[in-house]
Formats: sequence, C-alpha cells, structure tokens
Amino acid sequence: MIDTGDLGHQVQSIINSYSKRGGICYTDGYHLPSLSTIRTILRQIEEILFPGYFETTVITPENLNDLIGEKIASVTELLVQEISKSLIWSAHEDQVIPNIDECKALAKSMTRAFFDFIPTLRHILIQDVIATYNGDPAAKSQAEIILSYPGFHATRIFRIAHFFYRLDVPLIPRMMTEIVHSQTGIDIHPGATIDHSFCIDHGTGIVIGETADIGNNVKLYQGVTLGALSIPKSKTVIKRHPTLGDHVIVYAETTILGGDTMIGSSSIIGGNVWITQSIPENSKIYLSSDYQQLIKSGRINRQST
Amino acid sequence: MIDTGDLGHQVQSIINSYSKRGGICYTDGYHLPSLSTIRTILRQIEEILFPGYFETTVITPENLNDLIGEKIASVTELLVQEISKSLIWSAHEDQVIPNIDECKALAKSMTRAFFDFIPTLRHILIQDVIATYNGDPAAKSQAEIILSYPGFHATRIFRIAHFFYRLDVPLIPRMMTEIVHSQTGIDIHPGATIDHSFCIDHGTGIVIGETADIGNNVKLYQGVTLGALSIPKSKTVIKRHPTLGDHVIVYAETTILGGDTMIGSSSIIGGNVWITQSIPENSKIYLSSDYQQLIKSGRINRQST
Amino acid sequence: MIDTGDLGHQVQSIINSYSKRGGICYTDGYHLPSLSTIRTILRQIEEILFPGYFETTVITPENLNDLIGEKIASVTELLVQEISKSLIWSAHEDQVIPNIDECKALAKSMTRAFFDFIPTLRHILIQDVIATYNGDPAAKSQAEIILSYPGFHATRIFRIAHFFYRLDVPLIPRMMTEIVHSQTGIDIHPGATIDHSFCIDHGTGIVIGETADIGNNVKLYQGVTLGALSIPKSKTVIKRHPTLGDHVIVYAETTILGGDTMIGSSSIIGGNVWITQSIPENSKIYLSSDYQQLIKSGRINRQST
Repeated sequence: MIDTGDLGHQVQSIINSYSKRGGICYTDGYHLPSLSTIRTILRQIEEILFPGYFETTVITPENLNDLIGEKIASVTELLVQEISKSLIWSAHEDQVIPNIDECKALAKSMTRAFFDFIPTLRHILIQDVIATYNGDPAAKSQAEIILSYPGFHATRIFRIAHFFYRLDVPLIPRMMTEIVHSQTGIDIHPGATIDHSFCIDHGTGIVIGETADIGNNVKLYQGVTLGALSIPKSKTVIKRHPTLGDHVIVYAETTILGGDTMIGSSSIIGGNVWITQSIPENSKIYLSSDYQQLIKSGRINRQST
Repeated sequence: MIDTGDLGHQVQSIINSYSKRGGICYTDGYHLPSLSTIRTILRQIEEILFPGYFETTVITPENLNDLIGEKIASVTELLVQEISKSLIWSAHEDQVIPNIDECKALAKSMTRAFFDFIPTLRHILIQDVIATYNGDPAAKSQAEIILSYPGFHATRIFRIAHFFYRLDVPLIPRMMTEIVHSQTGIDIHPGATIDHSFCIDHGTGIVIGETADIGNNVKLYQGVTLGALSIPKSKTVIKRHPTLGDHVIVYAETTILGGDTMIGSSSIIGGNVWITQSIPENSKIYLSSDYQQLIKSGRINRQST
Repeated sequence: MIDTGDLGHQVQSIINSYSKRGGICYTDGYHLPSLSTIRTILRQIEEILFPGYFETTVITPENLNDLIGEKIASVTELLVQEISKSLIWSAHEDQVIPNIDECKALAKSMTRAFFDFIPTLRHILIQDVIATYNGDPAAKSQAEIILSYPGFHATRIFRIAHFFYRLDVPLIPRMMTEIVHSQTGIDIHPGATIDHSFCIDHGTGIVIGETADIGNNVKLYQGVTLGALSIPKSKTVIKRHPTLGDHVIVYAETTILGGDTMIGSSSIIGGNVWITQSIPENSKIYLSSDYQQLIKSGRINRQST
C-alpha cells in the first residue's frame, strides 16, 4: 500500500475517472512505443550515420568496427522492440487479436531492411549537406552543418521516419518527426516526398504536409508552409498538399496551399507571399512595388507613452 | 578552499559584481522554484492524466492503483515544496516577512485543490483530443495525438498552468507554459481563457496573450498571434488581447490584435491576414483576388549567380 | 567481437560506406567539440552569471565563494578542452599540422579572457533584463524574466557566443546559438552586433543574420527576420544584413532584408511588413487602411463540410 497521506479520496476519484473515460488511458498491458526510447534510437542512428560527430568516444580506424557493431546491435534490439509494440497496438486498434510472434518477426525484417538502407541514406544525406553548404553564405564548413544546423537535423530525421512510414509502421514515424519538430521548430510530416539535395535555411516555423511532393535541389527558408486547403476528414486519402519542381527556392514566411498547386521547376517565390494556384516553370513571384503603396510612412509624434 | 588555479583574481571580481549589481542574483537563502523540478512535476502529472502513454512501466488493472498512488504522492511532495518556495519568494518581493508555516499550509491546500480538479481536467482534455482528431485530416488515431502532437502538448500544460494562475501562485504558472513553449514553439500565457474542445494544428509560432478569451471548438493554425496593441506598462490590468467566439477558425500566420477586437462566433479568418478590428459572426475573412495583383510574376533571366 | 547476430553483412556495408564517402564521417582521432559538453558549459556559465536561479543548491553569503569557485574551475576545464578541440580540428581543416600545446595555451588564454569579461557581461545582461521588464506589460518581476523568458535566454547565450565569435573560436559560437535556437525558436547568428538594453518579446521565429547591426534599446517581437537578399557564396564577406538604429521597435512577423537597409533610430515598424529599403529616423511604418480593402469579408454560406 502506497501512503498518499490524506489524498486517498483524490487518488480514488482519479482512478475512477480512468474507467469512466474510455480511450484516453491505456492500461490493458499492451504498451505504446516509448517516446524516450524512440529518442534514444534516433540518437544512436545518428551516431551510426556520422561517426565522431555526436558521441564522446574518440573514433579511430582500430575501434571503428567494434563501436559501430555495438551501436547496430543496440539499435536493432530497441527498434525490434518498439516496432513490435506499435504493430501489436495497431492490431488491437483494428480489433484484431495480434499474433505476437508474427509481429516480432515483421519488426525484425523491417529493422533489417532499415540497416540495408543505411549506405544509400548516407549518400542522400551527404547530398543534403553539400546543398546546404552551397546554399548558405554563412556556412563555414560541412562539419558545422552536421553538428549544429537545425535544417539538416530535421531533414535527416525526416528521411529516417519516411523510410518507416513507407513500410506502414504505425505511430513511430510521426513520433520521430515530432521529436525533431520539438527540437527545431521544423514540422515535416513523415509522409512527404522530398528528392535529393534538399536545403533548409534557419527553418523555424516550416510546415510540410503529408502529401507534399518536393523535387531535387529545393531550398526553403524559415516559416514556409506547404499546406492543405480546408477539406473534410473523409477526403484525407487524396493529395492535398502542393508539388514543388526541381531547383525551386521559397523565401521566408511564404504560404503555398492545395494539392493541385504546382510550382514549376527553377521558380523563385519571394517572401511573405500567399499562393493557392500553380506557377509556371522559371517564374519569379514577389510582392510588387504597388505593395509599397500599402505601406504608410509618417513621422512619429512623440508623446508620453 | 577550491583550487581555481591562476583564476583567483577573476573569481574575486565576479563575486564582487554580485554585490555591486543588486536584484540580479539571489543569494539570501530563500530559493526560487527550480525549473528542472517543475519539469519533473509536469511529466509526472502527464503520467497521471494519461497512464500508459509516457512512462515505461507496463500498466495493468492489478498495478494501476499502486502506481497512480505512488505518482500522486511524489507530485504532492514536489508541488508543495515548489509552491511554498514561490510564496515565500513573493512575500520577500513585497517586503513582507513570510510566515513559513502558513506558506506551506497554503501550498498544501492548493495542491489538494489541484488533485480534486484532475477528473474534470481529464474530461476537458479528452474533448481537446477529440476536437484535434476531428480537425486534422492527417491524424490517424487519438493515441497519436496524445503521444506526439505539439498542439495538444501545449494545450494540456496550459490547462494545468492556468489552474495555478487562477489560484495566484507566483512564478510557477509562467515557468510551466515557458517549458512547453520551449518544447513546441507554442506560447500560451497561463492567464488566457480557453473554453473546451480547443484544437491547434502544427502550432509553431502561435502566441496567445494573457487576457485573450477563446470560445469553445476554436481551431488555430501555426503562427497565429492573439496579441496586444502597444500600451504603456501602467495599463496592464485592462483587457488587451482579443476575444474569439465559439467555432472560430484562424489559418496560418494571421495576426489579431487588441483587447476590444472581437471575432464573432463561427467566423473563418484566412491565412496571413492582419486584423485590429472586430468581425461579425459567421464572417469569412481572406485576402481578396485584388491581392493577386500585388504579386508580380515574371520570367527569370538566368545569369550567373 | 561484438555479436550483431545475423546483421554482420549490414555492419560491413555500413562501414564500407564510411571510406567511400569522404568528408562525412570523422574517424581520425581528432575529435570535434561535443554538443552535450557545450550544453553543460552554457548551463554552468548561466549559474555563474545568476547564482541561485538555475541550480538546486541554496546559496548563502557563507557558501557563495566556494560554490562559485567550484563552478569556475569546472567551466575552465571544459572550455579549455572544447576550445582546444575546435582549434585542432580547424588546423586540420586548413591542412596545417596543429601544434597541440599551442592550441591548448591559446584555449587557456581565451578562457581566461572570458572570465575577465564576466563582470561586464553581467552589467550588460542586467540592462537587457530591465529593458525586457519595462517593455513587456505581462512581466510581473525581473526574476520571472531570468527564470523563464525565452527572449532573454536567447540574448544571454548570444552574448556569450558573440564573445567567442570575436575571438575567432571555430564551431563553438554557432553550436552555442543553435543550442538556444533549439530551446527558444530564436535564431541569432553569433556574429551579429547587438548594443545594450535589448528586448525580445515572445520571440519564436526570430532570425537575426551574421552581419546585422542593432542599436541600443531595440525591441523585436516574434517572427521578425533581419535577413539577407540573395547573394552568391563568394560575396559572403560583405555586410548583407540590415542595420537598426537606437530605440527601434519591430512588430511581429515583419521581414527586413539587405545589408544596405538602415532603419533610422526611434522608428516603429508595424507587424507583417516586408522591407527592403532604408527608413528615415522617427518614422512609423505600417500597413495602411488601403490594406483593409484587400481583405474581403463575406457571410458564410453554411453547408455540409
């Protein structure tokens, strides 16, 4: 018996509220994936992707194999465990009795597929680093980008999450992108499609929706939204977020909405613009000088404030 | 004696600067509430609100009572301690000699009131989850919202902080909302009034001011500000942030300012709009097609850049 | 030998990809500065700057000297170690064989210079706290600002990072500002110049570029960008971000771009404005009432959605 002092009454009415309010608590022994374990998994995957950048152990040609082997063994165990949980949970949600062994076997084969993908993923991520280095005048080195750039942080976690999203792993892909959203202010849905050499500068406030489709060599600045026009929940299977062609640049705080909206390749979209229709290739879109007439300028009459 | 090597001179001049600059350091033995303890308290409250979502222990009908009892005992101890600190600190700020026993007794009764409130709070939060599920086409399950949605994260911490704000607890309510602001980019002042079934989508960059008043079934997107027009510090007691009626939707990056500004119920406010006046019920406000004429579109003359 | 079960093949192809893709991993024994150690250093510096605000030990006149001495000893050791790493790394990047002893001696003298600077830094930070207190109607006390305001958090870390930026320490200044960017959504490049009595309100989404130059008593709201017009990477040495005179206020979501753009002192720039040209002193710039004509308002025809 736990001693809750004179709070016994409160304990009881809180516990009663669990049974009264179905769906909100989860107490039947089938556990949801753990946010803190997913965080650990991501950190260890990052250490495998870029050895020497995030851990405190010094890495040498001599200890490399053992260190990487250890990390892969650790991630494997955690990934199999968390993916299994999500598959078992998902079966329960669909009111199917899950076959625990099958869930574990599936989790194991998905984990193996992920490790098969890592050399390709590293190739893609190097292209993202190079695109970011070339795209940011303030970048002093590629190391700085890997170590500290939030845009590349969000991109690499997105690419990991997207892999599991395409395998239809429940819950975990979104948990992964929300973990990095919390750390960077960059909200990329794991379902988005983003081609190679992607560059995000600054990044806070970026939102990229589930069915957005982004070509190669695209560059986005802080506060850009690639979002949906309002649609009823029943239509969620259709494409509801925009398409950006190759080599498109979108400046800060611009909002582009709609599943039929297509920004043609090599177009440049200026800052603070609101777009809900398609734009041809090689266009340059910006607030015109007429906009300046909307800005009123006067002398300030200083008074006591 | 600590050995600071040859930094003895620096240590001394730093310590001298504490006595020269009153008000900036706090060394008189009355301690401020601890940010890291407030973080722990919030995490444990979340585990009580949604058992099975955030901890790593598997929860079963058999261990439920003991686990919840333990958590309530732990939160009680920490809350009484931190609220006491804030009350003692506040008395000192008002140049009153605090009665330590009275502060502790008050902290205890506030903590008890909070646990009395939890069943009601759970009811309110379930309504927020349902509103978020219905309002977001990308939401696959309610579990996903509780586990990973930043909008619901900010909302649940706001509702906890608001409870203590209404009890006039010093410092702690704002510390709570700033902790979740840091994690989500969503800045809701603990003094705001928000009715049931509140939905935030994406959320990064949202600012909701201290005297904002939000009806039920309201939905806000990323970057929305409900802010104040500039006022002198002496007028801070008046209502200075907007009122939103029931069933209002405000799209991304829109700014609504002023304490007299009232957005009528069931109105829809489009994205990137700047509003400083009241809007009648059932209105639809958006940037008109004339806005399109401000956007200039040209072909890009490719040159070496 | 690590047992990676049947993942031996995957381990090998991941390790092969390290040697194939030069530049992306760092395995030659010269270690990069550690993000988690930089986080520890910043936290300990904050405890030295504001004793009693962030630690859990109660500070009294009796234990003050020892506690501060201990913290200074600890920060000294960590700073010397991390700055040394960054200098050694930087020499390698420039294909120079570093003199390890010289790197350590330089790191030591830089660390000493930082501790010499702390009393001045405290003086500057107190002015920032006072400016924030006076500038925010919702601020109840200066303690609240130090404890929980993200704007002041970003400002104090920026002022630390800027010190090391001016000493040409590689990597670490940007790592410092990205750590606080992650925690606050406020992205201030360590190279920016910011005079005394700086106030940020709310702050999420603020971007201040490397060559921005900000006068004293300036106040910025959430979402303000002081950015660059697009320039080729070869021109990165010129001033490419705006200058703000003394006593300038910039409201939410406004974007000011360009190295030649000068906002005259005592000017007020309204919210949601996009500026790429200079503004004279004492100006008041805002979206005029003509802007209202762009906003279309209609009654909603309720239909099934």
